[in-house]
Amino acid sequence: MNGAGHAMPSRTPTRSALQQPFSRRHFLAAAAAGAITPAWSRAHAAWQGEPSQPPDSTAAAASPQLAAQTRSLMPVPYSVQWRTGGMPLSSGFYAAATGATRQDERVEAALSRLMMRIARRTALNLDPWRRGAPATAGLLVNCQAAGPHFPALGEDENYRLEISPEQARLEAPGIAGALRGLETLYQLIEAQPPGYGFPAVVIEDRPRFAWRGLLLDVSRHFQSVAEVERTLELMACCKFNVLHWHLSDDQGFRVESRVFPRLQELGSDGQFYSQSEIRQVIEHARRLGIRILPEFDMPAHTQAWMPGYPRLGSAPGPYHIARTFGYHNAVFDPTRGYVYHFLDRFFAEMAGLFPDAFLHIGGDENKGPEWRENTDIRAFMRRHGIHSKAGLQTYFNRRLNPIVRRHGKIMAGWEEILNPKLPKDVVVEAWLSVGALANIVKHGNRGILSAGYYLDLMWPAAQHYAVDPIPADSPMSAEEKARVLGGEACMWGEFVPPPILDSHIWPRAAAIAERLWSPAGVHDVPDMYRRLNLTSLELEALGSTHRALPGMLLRGFARGQNPAPLLTFMDVIEPIKGYGHSQHTYNVFTPPAFMCYAAPPESAARQWLPPLVQSFLRRPQSAAGKAAGRRLLQLFTAWDRGYEGYKKLLPHGPQMAELEPLYRALAGLGAAGRTAVRSLMGQQPLPGDWTAQKLAALAAIQPKYGDVILIIGPQMALLLDAADTGKTSGSEPVS
Amino acid sequence: MNGAGHAMPSRTPTRSALQQPFSRRHFLAAAAAGAITPAWSRAHAAWQGEPSQPPDSTAAAASPQLAAQTRSLMPVPYSVQWRTGGMPLSSGFYAAATGATRQDERVEAALSRLMMRIARRTALNLDPWRRGAPATAGLLVNCQAAGPHFPALGEDENYRLEISPEQARLEAPGIAGALRGLETLYQLIEAQPPGYGFPAVVIEDRPRFAWRGLLLDVSRHFQSVAEVERTLELMACCKFNVLHWHLSDDQGFRVESRVFPRLQELGSDGQFYSQSEIRQVIEHARRLGIRILPEFDMPAHTQAWMPGYPRLGSAPGPYHIARTFGYHNAVFDPTRGYVYHFLDRFFAEMAGLFPDAFLHIGGDENKGPEWRENTDIRAFMRRHGIHSKAGLQTYFNRRLNPIVRRHGKIMAGWEEILNPKLPKDVVVEAWLSVGALANIVKHGNRGILSAGYYLDLMWPAAQHYAVDPIPADSPMSAEEKARVLGGEACMWGEFVPPPILDSHIWPRAAAIAERLWSPAGVHDVPDMYRRLNLTSLELEALGSTHRALPGMLLRGFARGQNPAPLLTFMDVIEPIKGYGHSQHTYNVFTPPAFMCYAAPPESAARQWLPPLVQSFLRRPQSAAGKAAGRRLLQLFTAWDRGYEGYKKLLPHGPQMAELEPLYRALAGLGAAGRTAVRSLMGQQPLPGDWTAQKLAALAAIQPKYGDVILIIGPQMALLLDAADTGKTSGSEPVS
Repeated sequence: MNGAGHAMPSRTPTRSALQQPFSRRHFLAAAAAGAITPAWSRAHAAWQGEPSQPPDSTAAAASPQLAAQTRSLMPVPYSVQWRTGGMPLSSGFYAAATGATRQDERVEAALSRLMMRIARRTALNLDPWRRGAPATAGLLVNCQAAGPHFPALGEDENYRLEISPEQARLEAPGIAGALRGLETLYQLIEAQPPGYGFPAVVIEDRPRFAWRGLLLDVSRHFQSVAEVERTLELMACCKFNVLHWHLSDDQGFRVESRVFPRLQELGSDGQFYSQSEIRQVIEHARRLGIRILPEFDMPAHTQAWMPGYPRLGSAPGPYHIARTFGYHNAVFDPTRGYVYHFLDRFFAEMAGLFPDAFLHIGGDENKGPEWRENTDIRAFMRRHGIHSKAGLQTYFNRRLNPIVRRHGKIMAGWEEILNPKLPKDVVVEAWLSVGALANIVKHGNRGILSAGYYLDLMWPAAQHYAVDPIPADSPMSAEEKARVLGGEACMWGEFVPPPILDSHIWPRAAAIAERLWSPAGVHDVPDMYRRLNLTSLELEALGSTHRALPGMLLRGFARGQNPAPLLTFMDVIEPIKGYGHSQHTYNVFTPPAFMCYAAPPESAARQWLPPLVQSFLRRPQSAAGKAAGRRLLQLFTAWDRGYEGYKKLLPHGPQMAELEPLYRALAGLGAAGRTAVRSLMGQQPLPGDWTAQKLAALAAIQPKYGDVILIIGPQMALLLDAADTGKTSGSEPVS
Repeated sequence: MNGAGHAMPSRTPTRSALQQPFSRRHFLAAAAAGAITPAWSRAHAAWQGEPSQPPDSTAAAASPQLAAQTRSLMPVPYSVQWRTGGMPLSSGFYAAATGATRQDERVEAALSRLMMRIARRTALNLDPWRRGAPATAGLLVNCQAAGPHFPALGEDENYRLEISPEQARLEAPGIAGALRGLETLYQLIEAQPPGYGFPAVVIEDRPRFAWRGLLLDVSRHFQSVAEVERTLELMACCKFNVLHWHLSDDQGFRVESRVFPRLQELGSDGQFYSQSEIRQVIEHARRLGIRILPEFDMPAHTQAWMPGYPRLGSAPGPYHIARTFGYHNAVFDPTRGYVYHFLDRFFAEMAGLFPDAFLHIGGDENKGPEWRENTDIRAFMRRHGIHSKAGLQTYFNRRLNPIVRRHGKIMAGWEEILNPKLPKDVVVEAWLSVGALANIVKHGNRGILSAGYYLDLMWPAAQHYAVDPIPADSPMSAEEKARVLGGEACMWGEFVPPPILDSHIWPRAAAIAERLWSPAGVHDVPDMYRRLNLTSLELEALGSTHRALPGMLLRGFARGQNPAPLLTFMDVIEPIKGYGHSQHTYNVFTPPAFMCYAAPPESAARQWLPPLVQSFLRRPQSAAGKAAGRRLLQLFTAWDRGYEGYKKLLPHGPQMAELEPLYRALAGLGAAGRTAVRSLMGQQPLPGDWTAQKLAALAAIQPKYGDVILIIGPQMALLLDAADTGKTSGSEPVS
């Protein structure tokens, strides 16, 4: 039952540049070309994780002109016109709603929530339930119509927000737009010492894409209602509008079915949502203007259905809940009437539970061995002239679609379901490649993009941010472009036991949210990071533990000793990128008890180290260069000392020992870095063989310890190389 | 509606020594006598909050002999016999249950939960649902009988745990004991590099008191189901067995009544528990072996009942939910039949909802103006020969008790309800003074103690720990002692908006839990702190945010700038003690947006600063003294620098400005401290007027900035005074 785990999730690993083997050539070329430390690394240390030695700001951030325009707004609105002056906030601040907004429970809830958040941010005593006369209200919200009861695809999310010194006025055609506008209003709060206030501004806003989702996989690791609801609140903060709820897979069936109760009784280990909990989540999402899109993945990824209902399967069974990751063979038998009868009753029940117009049936990664090994299925295929696994799955989908439609739903599925016979109303989700989206819309179907937005790949935010559903050079026709509905950030659950959830989603997902909301022309990376660092604070204020998690875990590992050496280490490591995990036996029971779980997917050092090194190498003997050099010396010394401290902690947390070689290598790099810095400050180039030796040592560091990587390689390579030639990088690329 | 708040809660402020005005005499005398920096301060820096400059260990902790005996156990068991050897943990570890325990759902849930916690602590992949043959199980649990379905007062909580190199065997007469024993087992895990294991041991354990409660006030600030459930899990970790749920008060009525729905509709701002949520919480508590004691405080503290049912009140109304704290006048009219008829139906409903044998009716703090001002009530009193407010409340209670009893419950109430005519089965809770408890049991009633256990007073854990329901010198007779059921830590809610909850309860409440469970002879304070620091880690692993909170709040105040100067400050301040708040208008809407919310009730510096100063003053010119002196110099420099950094942060978080005078004073103390340390290290006494001047400056620091206090006063006074006379403190008291 608890067999050896496959480390690799079944999804095709999209290799990240960051995961490639280290080599001198690679480092130098990549660093010069910006591929490893790309443009966005110019943004600097505003985002302090919990670094033990956060250096002071070391380099200029991106364009101050741009910062003056975008301020704290994320996603950036369609149009922003700043005015002079502002509206101070006082404890007399209250809101009023008129028009269709008046007494609407969503607006009421949103206003109360906004008031509590404003109070928290500004330290003002605001009564969240106070409403009053529109004329003297600090905030006046007016909607022309309420809009649909449940959030719906294509619902008008536009709004107009005008803040004068007297009043903030929010106008929207529907409540969805008003909800988005209230989030924008909140982001406009600024310190106006001795208090806080809003700047005067006129904002006209509308989303670029109508479908802006976050997929949450609750099958590989169950996430409680509290976690799902917190995720919804964090999503609303970034104007996401779809929670794609991946509710069933090989590792667990997470919904209470009353028609087929053995689904959850035998398929969930007791970890499922009751129907009343699901209704509660849907209502919570409705109030935030977020659709809930349920996914029941089939015909593969269905092993957890089968302990309760083995006749669904293509093999004789018996079936157990899967405990390992990677491909599993369990697959529905598409040749049996029983399966369609079952699904008809099942979808009837689920269609009544989930109000959204769409129902996601998965359809991905059917490898087919159970079909090949079943003589009845082979005979059926011969009888029906079906020649391939894909053909049989098409047959399944063509029988499935009318069932879904009969219960009033539109089908959605992963890109494997695409074929010329697929009905054109089906929404298809591209996940294997960004290019697949063009193919989907060329077929005449509507498409959404998740390729490039997989949060479990542990990419830096900038890498996701660069992925556009409709790139500037897209060959799509205007008609095809119109069929691109949007995209979805995907939080697959293999490596996400509950305490890790926030840290693996946030704040990176906010960059994807901006890509999907803001105009295509909004793509300045340093400015994105500047704003992401502010958004991160708001996410934390809403209860996200993404910033606190490293400290929470590392204190436990250090068992009451000072965890500072671990925090020092955490500054310069990240979880391994892609699906190259190899060091632990990952399965559904793997506890979050290793350093790789504490490491944030994107280290703060990615932001502050490159400008520090750059600032030093530009002119090592100038005053600014020397100041940067001194900070580098401090940093390198902290690595040495940290390593010594870490060794003393090992007896308290033996599982940390797996990283000993990596921390030792870091200490060695610190020593080499100090030599290089002193050599450059003293204008005394080191012999070429010293540098070659150090670079070889650097290149020998592989991401094989505890499934984390050191992220400082490219910067250290630049530094060591500069010490060798004695030259400074100046403005020319290092070659 | 949102009027000016009373800062002071209505409860009589029990003045803490820490709250007294600063003065040189006070400091020196108190420091010498141990009243301000008492014995427990000898325990040192194992507890790292999130201090920005955590010094290394500076002094020996308390008795190593004691530590070898108590290890990580908290509360300390009745009897522990350590054996040699131990049982290593491996991924093959599983549990089996026999006897009455077999397949009991509480034991099943507890074993799964334990397995997940062991996995998290040891980094082992353990299948939480795996059970197997008893003979080869790593853990064998056996109960003689299941015990009552719901946890009950007096239920047998004894257990015996024996760990040999082959197996851990837990025996208990009932499931309550088994649950306690599993918590003890978890605390026994120790690093046995390269892995983890259990030591060999025989533990026989039983609680000193049967009633070990935590009061949670959800009226002043509502706490969600998730927060209540987390609190229950944290309670179970310390063997608390009663959640005293203070469900109604002037500021909110928090339970769904179906019989009187306007209670929650008009009395809760929508913040109440549905009956299904309450059942969920009760079931959650049942599985943890915790009783849920509901309190409906009456006849005073009832203002939130009256917007819905004004006829309950003694004044004409109309009534609104109270928004401020302090005394409110709303009180039931004990002369009206309507009130008893209402309460009869209400308690019938609540008796069906809450399974515990007891029902707490409050009864405290009735000030009586509404009674005095009501001519009908005055006439009634005359007619019935009732001469006082107390007499009328006795009349009310005497009519209330049969109603409570008719619905199968035993009444409990605060000490004001005590009078000779009170039925002897009523449980009375002493809160105004520890001495009241002796009076209660002398009357023949059973009593519980909450005086001395008020967590909102912000006392250090040691101060609560010193309070014993039956002090060693108690004059109670054996019979009277037997009527002392136990005690309750009380978390009153005035200053506890939801994100603050964990930080104000934990880890301090664990010291109270130990007082109520462990033998009276367990009272070594340094050893308690040593174990509390370990318990704190386990609480954090269970999801408590008490350690992460300062960072979470301070990052927000610093708005993306480096919060290190704030963390430096947070090391040496605490929230004001007692109820002397004065700086903010505290009411139910006051946001957790001030430094006083980020400051932990008990600063880490209380543990590490006194031994550091002591170690320095003992022999300033010795090697150890000089090492301590250097650390003090670093610390004092951090105060200066922190102040400079803090001033730069002020424009980002204007509300932090209220603490500017206090941080400035700290910087001044840092400069003075440096001078004193250098003088002592150099054997060059400073002139007496220098010291007098600095001590005067120290004495001038009042706890009036932002409702926080500097806790370093006594230590700084010792240091400055030593510099004056040039003498070292040695072992004689400083006079």
